[in-house]
Amino acid sequence: MNAEIICVGTEILLGDILNTNCQYLAQQLASLGIPHYYQTVVGDNLNRLQKAIAIAIRRASILIFTGGLGPTPDDLTTEGIAAFFATPLVERSEIIQDIEEKFAQRGRIMTASNRKQALIPAGAKILPNPIGTAPGIIWQPQNGLTILTFPGVPEEMHKMWQATAVPFLKSQGWGKEIIYSRMLRFRGIGESALAEKVASLFKLTNPTVAPYASDGEVRLRVSAKAKSEPDAIALIAPVAQQIQEIAGLDYFGADEDTLASVVGNLLRKRGETLSVAESCTGGGLGSMLTDLPNSSDYFLGGVIAYSNEVKVALLDVKLADLEQFGAVSGQVAQQMALGVKQRLGSSWGIGITGIAGPGGGTNTKPVGLVYVGIATPEGEVMSYTYRFGAERSRNLIRYLSSCNALDQLRRKLLS
Amino acid sequence: MNAEIICVGTEILLGDILNTNCQYLAQQLASLGIPHYYQTVVGDNLNRLQKAIAIAIRRASILIFTGGLGPTPDDLTTEGIAAFFATPLVERSEIIQDIEEKFAQRGRIMTASNRKQALIPAGAKILPNPIGTAPGIIWQPQNGLTILTFPGVPEEMHKMWQATAVPFLKSQGWGKEIIYSRMLRFRGIGESALAEKVASLFKLTNPTVAPYASDGEVRLRVSAKAKSEPDAIALIAPVAQQIQEIAGLDYFGADEDTLASVVGNLLRKRGETLSVAESCTGGGLGSMLTDLPNSSDYFLGGVIAYSNEVKVALLDVKLADLEQFGAVSGQVAQQMALGVKQRLGSSWGIGITGIAGPGGGTNTKPVGLVYVGIATPEGEVMSYTYRFGAERSRNLIRYLSSCNALDQLRRKLLS
Repeated sequence: MNAEIICVGTEILLGDILNTNCQYLAQQLASLGIPHYYQTVVGDNLNRLQKAIAIAIRRASILIFTGGLGPTPDDLTTEGIAAFFATPLVERSEIIQDIEEKFAQRGRIMTASNRKQALIPAGAKILPNPIGTAPGIIWQPQNGLTILTFPGVPEEMHKMWQATAVPFLKSQGWGKEIIYSRMLRFRGIGESALAEKVASLFKLTNPTVAPYASDGEVRLRVSAKAKSEPDAIALIAPVAQQIQEIAGLDYFGADEDTLASVVGNLLRKRGETLSVAESCTGGGLGSMLTDLPNSSDYFLGGVIAYSNEVKVALLDVKLADLEQFGAVSGQVAQQMALGVKQRLGSSWGIGITGIAGPGGGTNTKPVGLVYVGIATPEGEVMSYTYRFGAERSRNLIRYLSSCNALDQLRRKLLS
Repeated sequence: MNAEIICVGTEILLGDILNTNCQYLAQQLASLGIPHYYQTVVGDNLNRLQKAIAIAIRRASILIFTGGLGPTPDDLTTEGIAAFFATPLVERSEIIQDIEEKFAQRGRIMTASNRKQALIPAGAKILPNPIGTAPGIIWQPQNGLTILTFPGVPEEMHKMWQATAVPFLKSQGWGKEIIYSRMLRFRGIGESALAEKVASLFKLTNPTVAPYASDGEVRLRVSAKAKSEPDAIALIAPVAQQIQEIAGLDYFGADEDTLASVVGNLLRKRGETLSVAESCTGGGLGSMLTDLPNSSDYFLGGVIAYSNEVKVALLDVKLADLEQFGAVSGQVAQQMALGVKQRLGSSWGIGITGIAGPGGGTNTKPVGLVYVGIATPEGEVMSYTYRFGAERSRNLIRYLSSCNALDQLRRKLLS
């Protein structure tokens, strides 16, 4: 018993979109212990879709489709599946009703083309879509073969997978031997440096330890195979513990933890608040902090001080210092941090100023130079200098600036 | 004559990595006018790899492999291809020499395992790797079938594709007819509604018109096949023009245009400036605006007014109105827009306040309710109400809020 993922969409064949759905489904299948050996991408073409189905049913017993459930004529997945199994499509009134309600909620009227989305193969169950108008199906067209379909919109697919597909697959006996992983997260250390520190652990077989790195964050994935999640967690715990001890403050969290959530939890625990003053990041740090529900517990707000006038008017940065040291300087970063802390009355303040590029760099202040200022509850201020390198993109420099500012605050909160 | 992309790697099946190579190759094939109808992903398994080859050679005449060319025992691509065509592997001394030189440059000595990378099928040509130790091959194992292999490291694959594969494919007569596309972008209209308006155009064959939708943005891709880019552009232009006329203000731009870039260009042309006051978006709108280089030409900055105190202290929102109408109200959105415009001295001001969830919703003010205020250069203020729906994620609600705020400003700037 194994699965095959079939992604349908000419836009994937044209390279217009990155196939993130396939990665999501692959991770999900792995965590349920459902093996899958092939992934197939096919365009919006009825004939070729049916050929792909003919191949897949010879090598897999669960076919998982994404894409091609929309209202337009090139959305052919349901039609193709039904045709392959010579099964008529039936209009389901409960789907029509659901689509009409969704349109009504947004003050619109259902268009005629959406009717198509209510057609599903006779005998198939509806896999409800809580967000959009395209439901999927769960269908056993023949003995020993199960088909699940999902729309291509990632958010809808994820919700439908979690709400309906996972319970269904578990009810079919899957997920008995599971693979469970923890992703340990590090900042302030390179991949090879961390890998050398924990080299001996790479030889383990259950759990296994594998390194990943991207955009300044290094991760170690610790994966265990076991009969249950608690068993897997018990296998992982001592290894994770050992890694954390080796890494010290460079370890910042695991799994869904982000620098923003870790900093937020530390602030909440201490009953302290934060405000931010952003120049080159332009709101990115605030956005990162407020990605989290309940961030209003500790985050008061901030000032996006993109122009020098705003730095003076709203953050009390001294005009003389702007002129003497320049807007991109440790002095200005410190004054921004202190200014926003005082104006907003928060415990802590962060200031960020830098050159995100691609233009605007000089010999002494190249693209990628960023200063982070931190003001403490005691009114101390300090600044940190980063040189991210002019070869990095504007957006990566901005992203890394926000991350490193949070990482500095995290280290202060922990020390 | 058409191609198939075959990506080899168990890490893709486990969902550990996102398959960006497939998108790159898909784009490249499209731009050369080489059709491809299927993409296959298979793990590091000799038997299943050969089964995938058996299927692919029945439906494609060019097989493009990525991954599985490394020095470790699980790198099996070359071995699998040679075995399928019953061809012996031959050690090529020029590859050994190249690998040795690369190790020497890094002050290291070649490891024994790298010898494996010098084995290629008898009769195959070397596809040189200018960066890493894994060369690929170009091979015609049988009449009418060409195989190209590339390592999985994206940077190496890209260089090898451009330096050797593109000239090779052109020498085979490809790239004479190209596919060129424009992506037209729309906001404020649903996919099905737009599709109905332009329904007759979906029947065109050159150029073709196809719809896509995600996260509130609808797109129409207009693709033409022609001998040259200018010829393709000439085919696309009248159709794109017709679509723009039909869509009116719902059309906002094409290709790399974003709402932020379109608004930015309009402001720059008028010599006007913008500042933003953000509550639920927490800096996301500012971040979107400053993603663009030179956004300081028109963007002055803003206030992240996450707490009510900040709304009063930095944006002059009236405390009485906060109490009477609530922080999430059209009145407060308007005062935020006006407040930030006046404090920062910009031509335009935007205010956003809403309930991003998942908590905090009530019957009268549910999660997903967002107010956007706009203050004009003349000092007028107005507000717009959005109900994005509580079933949408916090981040999508925040993202849509920023987009719709920019879209409203765009419509004002154009009308």
